Amino acid sequence: MTVKLVVLYTQPADAGDFDEHYLGVHGPLVDKVPGLQRWEGARFVAAADGGEQTYHRIAELWFEDMDALQAALGSAEGQATAGDYQQIAPPGSRMFIAAVD
Amino acid sequence: MTVKLVVLYTQPADAGDFDEHYLGVHGPLVDKVPGLQRWEGARFVAAADGGEQTYHRIAELWFEDMDALQAALGSAEGQATAGDYQQIAPPGSRMFIAAVD
Repeated sequence: MTVKLVVLYTQPADAGDFDEHYLGVHGPLVDKVPGLQRWEGARFVAAADGGEQTYHRIAELWFEDMDALQAALGSAEGQATAGDYQQIAPPGSRMFIAAVD
Repeated sequence: MTVKLVVLYTQPADAGDFDEHYLGVHGPLVDKVPGLQRWEGARFVAAADGGEQTYHRIAELWFEDMDALQAALGSAEGQATAGDYQQIAPPGSRMFIAAVD
């Protein structure tokens, strides 16, 4: 069963600075995570329901199964990526695991 | 530029009932949305950051560009899907538009 890590970044103080680091530093760290099937980042541009634009970005990392995801999180590359996440994620950012239908 | 509609469903009163409707009724409505490149649903199974499991499900609908997304939302099939969303989405559920990197 395919699983994915879903990361929701809340609004940073400076979206330009955030994206520069995100695309230039964080993305290349994600690229190195072992066992990753693929990943996709996206920037929220609107709240389609007319509500608050709670989040600035979403990232999803797909893995073959939960074992592969857990191994990735425990790897040196996964730990480096998590460490960078801790540095850049604005308060209230969230990280979930989801089972793909 | 690829864009996607990102839907976050908060926890329903009964996850089993919700998923039965979601997979049996809502999904087939999404399948009919015109201009859709693909879509993916997933069920959150854990909060990887140790926080609250805020959301029950995520759905993403990918489109070629913003025009295609807007056309889809305005179509009869899009309106039918939105109507069903209004019926099933637990309070606090959210719907965003994101630009894929």
